[in-house]
Amino acid sequence: MFDLMRELAIESRSKIVLLVADGLGGLPREPGGPTELEAAVTPHLDGLVARNVCGLSLPVAPGITPGSGPGHLGLFGYDPLAFTIGRGVLEALGIDFDLGPDDVAARGNFCTVDADGRITDRRAGRIDSEVGRALVEKLRGVRIEGAEIFVEPVKDYRFVLVIRAPGLGDDIADTDPGMTDVPPRKPEAHDPASKRTAAILESFIGQAADILRDDHPANMITLRGIAKRPPIPQFEEVYRLRAGAIAVYPMYRGLARLVGMTILQPGTSLADQLEALRRHWDDADFFFMHYKYTDAAGEDGDFERKVACIEELDAAIPAIVDLGPDVLMVTGDHSTPAALRSHSWHPVPVLLAASTCRPDAATSFGERSCLQGGLGQVEAKYLLPLALAHAGRLAKFGA
Amino acid sequence: MFDLMRELAIESRSKIVLLVADGLGGLPREPGGPTELEAAVTPHLDGLVARNVCGLSLPVAPGITPGSGPGHLGLFGYDPLAFTIGRGVLEALGIDFDLGPDDVAARGNFCTVDADGRITDRRAGRIDSEVGRALVEKLRGVRIEGAEIFVEPVKDYRFVLVIRAPGLGDDIADTDPGMTDVPPRKPEAHDPASKRTAAILESFIGQAADILRDDHPANMITLRGIAKRPPIPQFEEVYRLRAGAIAVYPMYRGLARLVGMTILQPGTSLADQLEALRRHWDDADFFFMHYKYTDAAGEDGDFERKVACIEELDAAIPAIVDLGPDVLMVTGDHSTPAALRSHSWHPVPVLLAASTCRPDAATSFGERSCLQGGLGQVEAKYLLPLALAHAGRLAKFGA
Repeated sequence: MFDLMRELAIESRSKIVLLVADGLGGLPREPGGPTELEAAVTPHLDGLVARNVCGLSLPVAPGITPGSGPGHLGLFGYDPLAFTIGRGVLEALGIDFDLGPDDVAARGNFCTVDADGRITDRRAGRIDSEVGRALVEKLRGVRIEGAEIFVEPVKDYRFVLVIRAPGLGDDIADTDPGMTDVPPRKPEAHDPASKRTAAILESFIGQAADILRDDHPANMITLRGIAKRPPIPQFEEVYRLRAGAIAVYPMYRGLARLVGMTILQPGTSLADQLEALRRHWDDADFFFMHYKYTDAAGEDGDFERKVACIEELDAAIPAIVDLGPDVLMVTGDHSTPAALRSHSWHPVPVLLAASTCRPDAATSFGERSCLQGGLGQVEAKYLLPLALAHAGRLAKFGA
Repeated sequence: MFDLMRELAIESRSKIVLLVADGLGGLPREPGGPTELEAAVTPHLDGLVARNVCGLSLPVAPGITPGSGPGHLGLFGYDPLAFTIGRGVLEALGIDFDLGPDDVAARGNFCTVDADGRITDRRAGRIDSEVGRALVEKLRGVRIEGAEIFVEPVKDYRFVLVIRAPGLGDDIADTDPGMTDVPPRKPEAHDPASKRTAAILESFIGQAADILRDDHPANMITLRGIAKRPPIPQFEEVYRLRAGAIAVYPMYRGLARLVGMTILQPGTSLADQLEALRRHWDDADFFFMHYKYTDAAGEDGDFERKVACIEELDAAIPAIVDLGPDVLMVTGDHSTPAALRSHSWHPVPVLLAASTCRPDAATSFGERSCLQGGLGQVEAKYLLPLALAHAGRLAKFGA
């Protein structure tokens, strides 16, 4: 599909807005009742559905519940099964760390070991963030010849380790054994290119153990998800789109950065995001706008709050429409039903508004209504090609 | 899928008719209005939909607008992304040139060059077809040792060049630089197998330049889309179908010939095509009938004429049904909405009539109605397997 996009993508002055309501899809609170999206009063989204086209997006494949990484890669047009993002990388993106192509990132945990070096608590008694930050500060004293080392706090007992040196491999097993009563594993390289990485990590771990010796319960560390940025074709090269991301949360800015989008800093509210969209309207062809709170409410199991978040988002629609995008697509990266308090595999409602939409029978933005939509049930990775087509940005394939 | 078809296809006396209305799918003329197909009065097609099954065909992939080549390959059961047809080949098919497996075809343009050999007009002032034909006649004087040369007029400043010699490669860049003020490029081989082809083309171009020296504005040529027939598995071998094509336009006869169909000459009208179908009913198992005028009306932006063409086609349905095909499938190779005056990416309505259809909620042949159809939205390449199944021509897979 990438080769096809590279072949067919053409320059244009058209504008595309992709509005992602994280975890948009839901489930009824009681049997037969409405989902969060169906319960929400959304006159602006409903109006767009009635005049345009809608459907349901399958983030990865039927039955597969995606994390934020694969959920967004799909929406960006990448096959989430072909491009995987290591946990260390996601963790680094989540704290806005600007990973370079030579960086190896790992998710770190402080843990507790006994006098024999065996793990007694994999999370170091869940020390709080302030303690974690102070220990991270100490770990920054580690020095390794020929490599730059970054240690950044995340939350509680979690931190990110980044090693920067040219030519490092990243095929290395976790040092976290996933159980107690055994010592942390040594970093083991699974290919020749990763041997130097393993040696650097071993040195880091050794120095860390010395530094933390007296910091019980956080007297040791483990590393997981050791990974480099995947080599992902960049948005501009594949789609000929100058793309800008307007996201409040760092993880989503990071995912956008991975595919080559420019980060447009929005402040912290939806109003700030709209203001950023307006301010940068001439600076990009494609805008990825990420709204987090639908997912957060779903994760909290708070049906009413998720409904309120959707209504807040609906109220923002006229401000986007007023800018006159050629294509406005509204969807989610996955479902997060309040009833499940977690991401789920259920297809996600999607609406596409453009002057070239064929009418369908759907008249409101909701899971049941979208089943009547002209987009049918479509793999998320095809949504961007569809948006490009409706924006007049894809040439004919073959003669 | 081919291996599966080869394994499962069985002999039968059943008959399949595939009626392709070129560019069938459309868009409303005004927001919320009917599409061309929805506006047309089509009692016979509607009757078939009501008693059988329908859906929407995706010619290539969501968002991808196909040319006639990929559009038809999909309907013939071939993955249009796996089998691509070069422009030179299509151009040769379009003038009914019977390309052999050893032939390299190119699309030729007459162009104008100045005294320094730099192109000043890539289309030689758009000389008319009569002048073009006379110049083609002169180019037939070119002789090259060890190769047969065919030069055929197409239209205006366009011609087809075919080189016939065993073992020629076809990985050669266009000689048309795509701009003026530079000379035509030399034919450059991209692989060893194409070196001899490049040498032959260079000799042809050199002789052509001498021959055309005094024919300003058409005093030089460029070549594009240099290609051989792709190695396409043949219909009879894969599907065990004796297939016949009834198409008024040469391009579609050529596409049918590429996959091994027999060309049944129909004259020039739809009535002629029906007559050919009747006359040859016992000569084939599968009939590909191509109706061009829906696409032509769409390309002209003529909504009313496209509606009238669809109604003409509808009037032909009883004559086909009267022959008693076991399966009648009616669809298009792509959409050509009059509103866009061009091919488009929108899914194409498809109806399948057979005694083994499961009922669905659709009652008329139109884009919105087909969204209710039992076939759902299906990639075009799966339509032929579906037709084979309904014709009792596919055995069970596995025990």
